[in-house]
Amino acid sequence: MGVVVPLEGGKTNESTVRRLVDLTARDMGRVNELILSKAGSDVAMIPEVANHLISSGGKRLRPMLTLAAAQLFGYSGDAHVKLATSVEFMHTATLLHDDVVDESDLRRGKTTARTIWGNQASVLVGDFLLGQAFRMMVDVGSLEALDILSTAASIIAEGEVMQLAAAKNLETTEDEYMAVIKAKTAALFSAACEVGPVVAEATRADRAALRSYGLNLGMAFQLVDDALDYGGDAATLGKNVGDDFREGKVTLPVILSYRRGSPDEREFWTRAIEGNETGDVELEAALGLVARHGAIGDTITRARHFGEIARDALAPLPTSPQKAAMIEVIDFCISRVS
Amino acid sequence: MGVVVPLEGGKTNESTVRRLVDLTARDMGRVNELILSKAGSDVAMIPEVANHLISSGGKRLRPMLTLAAAQLFGYSGDAHVKLATSVEFMHTATLLHDDVVDESDLRRGKTTARTIWGNQASVLVGDFLLGQAFRMMVDVGSLEALDILSTAASIIAEGEVMQLAAAKNLETTEDEYMAVIKAKTAALFSAACEVGPVVAEATRADRAALRSYGLNLGMAFQLVDDALDYGGDAATLGKNVGDDFREGKVTLPVILSYRRGSPDEREFWTRAIEGNETGDVELEAALGLVARHGAIGDTITRARHFGEIARDALAPLPTSPQKAAMIEVIDFCISRVS
Repeated sequence: MGVVVPLEGGKTNESTVRRLVDLTARDMGRVNELILSKAGSDVAMIPEVANHLISSGGKRLRPMLTLAAAQLFGYSGDAHVKLATSVEFMHTATLLHDDVVDESDLRRGKTTARTIWGNQASVLVGDFLLGQAFRMMVDVGSLEALDILSTAASIIAEGEVMQLAAAKNLETTEDEYMAVIKAKTAALFSAACEVGPVVAEATRADRAALRSYGLNLGMAFQLVDDALDYGGDAATLGKNVGDDFREGKVTLPVILSYRRGSPDEREFWTRAIEGNETGDVELEAALGLVARHGAIGDTITRARHFGEIARDALAPLPTSPQKAAMIEVIDFCISRVS
Repeated sequence: MGVVVPLEGGKTNESTVRRLVDLTARDMGRVNELILSKAGSDVAMIPEVANHLISSGGKRLRPMLTLAAAQLFGYSGDAHVKLATSVEFMHTATLLHDDVVDESDLRRGKTTARTIWGNQASVLVGDFLLGQAFRMMVDVGSLEALDILSTAASIIAEGEVMQLAAAKNLETTEDEYMAVIKAKTAALFSAACEVGPVVAEATRADRAALRSYGLNLGMAFQLVDDALDYGGDAATLGKNVGDDFREGKVTLPVILSYRRGSPDEREFWTRAIEGNETGDVELEAALGLVARHGAIGDTITRARHFGEIARDALAPLPTSPQKAAMIEVIDFCISRVS
């Protein structure tokens, strides 16, 4: 099922986020301490549920980006650690609520919190983490950072509702799909990157650069994620091919395959997505159709488009290890599909 | 099923919140406009779900308290209108999430949003309203008000998880019950009242007075609410006697009746609450036991205790229409049980 994507610029498939990890290692140690402390509560169920998700092997890309974006402008205080933790909590809260919304039993190959503790705990612990995220932002005291992150919180929820309203609708256009992923995924990447220059008191142009980098990186990230669901190496990624298909999600590989398909093929997609016929046989058929229409390759081409915009957003900035690391992240996101 | 409670201080059962309504009428007009505007979205499902709940006949006690608390200290700007709207959105978000957690089909005699649009929409629109609440607070720009309200958001969620963890546990002590209602209900009343003097730049003592008034009023409010579920006039209140019983909630009337009951009675409560035997026959029996042990009257006595503390919290403040209105609210809350 592996999909090999030729990478431009001589990048190999071994692209990693190693530079970003190294540059933020010390600060991430403080973020991880803060995560444990702020997810704590005398109400035992809160750290239980929170730690289940927090320890489940996410890359913590978003908080690392906040830290690197602050370092990029020479920031030396500790506000970026609190903001990075806030960003990770907002992300974790979204995942907890998403699992309830999607009725998911597995995330990253691990049983979801809602399966173990019930929907109730997932909803409420998500609310708690969101509250804690806001408290940390308030503690930092930057109204600009608060504005950026609270706006992102509204936009993310709006994007999730948009996705819900469009659920199982094969007439969803590519534009509508792009609007959904911009809101539900790219908005948080964008906010995570923009608050770095904000606490570092960088210029408006620098803020705009990081905001644009994050937004476009987030678009690329989600597009690749949606492509991976119809290919990629499940073993290394901890993601199962076909999850989105089985949940009837109308992502870009489906949108392209449906639009490019014959009337018979469209009937197949309708039975599958709207009629919930999404067993193993149907998944095999779907993978065949997606391949026939080049829908994975074209989804990645779209991702690369956003990746290039993200790269150019950083272009005016002077050379630095942080800049190099952030560019490497773009390559990593796109080369995941290998 | 009516429970008549003799009210102290010569108050009649006709106590209302009329003074509060009159004093805040003009500002509430602006709050209502802001509610409609900030619950708006191009994603049609958001205003649909939000308006379903917003228009369902709540008293809007919390935002009125924020407005009156700001007026009490001569505030003449418009920050209190935004904060009052934020408070109402936080409350609405909590209700949306509560309905999912409680699996409720009815609220105030009206079909819940989750029954019409599904759990998914209730979770996500709640998240959206919470995000909008924070944006409005950020817009006001008071870090103190942000601190108070974001802390309340965490505490409310913590209280809800506490309640969930203690669900159907008849060994819940009165202290544990009090801790739950303090977090899930009283914390928001307290924050709603405290942000008034904060935006009015009142003294620390005045802030403390309003915080204490709100906290104790909230305790009284929830105790009476829990008493009403085992009595009161359902027709006028839009609340059905027995809702809590049917959901197996361990509220103070149950805690007192269980603790005071015979071994046979305790077995009855165990079958009902833990074994979900909560039909009409069991409800009749439960009402009989609650009455026999004076559990409603004593729940109201506890409420009155907190009401007195709320009244004394305001005692040092000079006489004013706002002060009189806020004291009337205490009487109203307690006299609801009639």
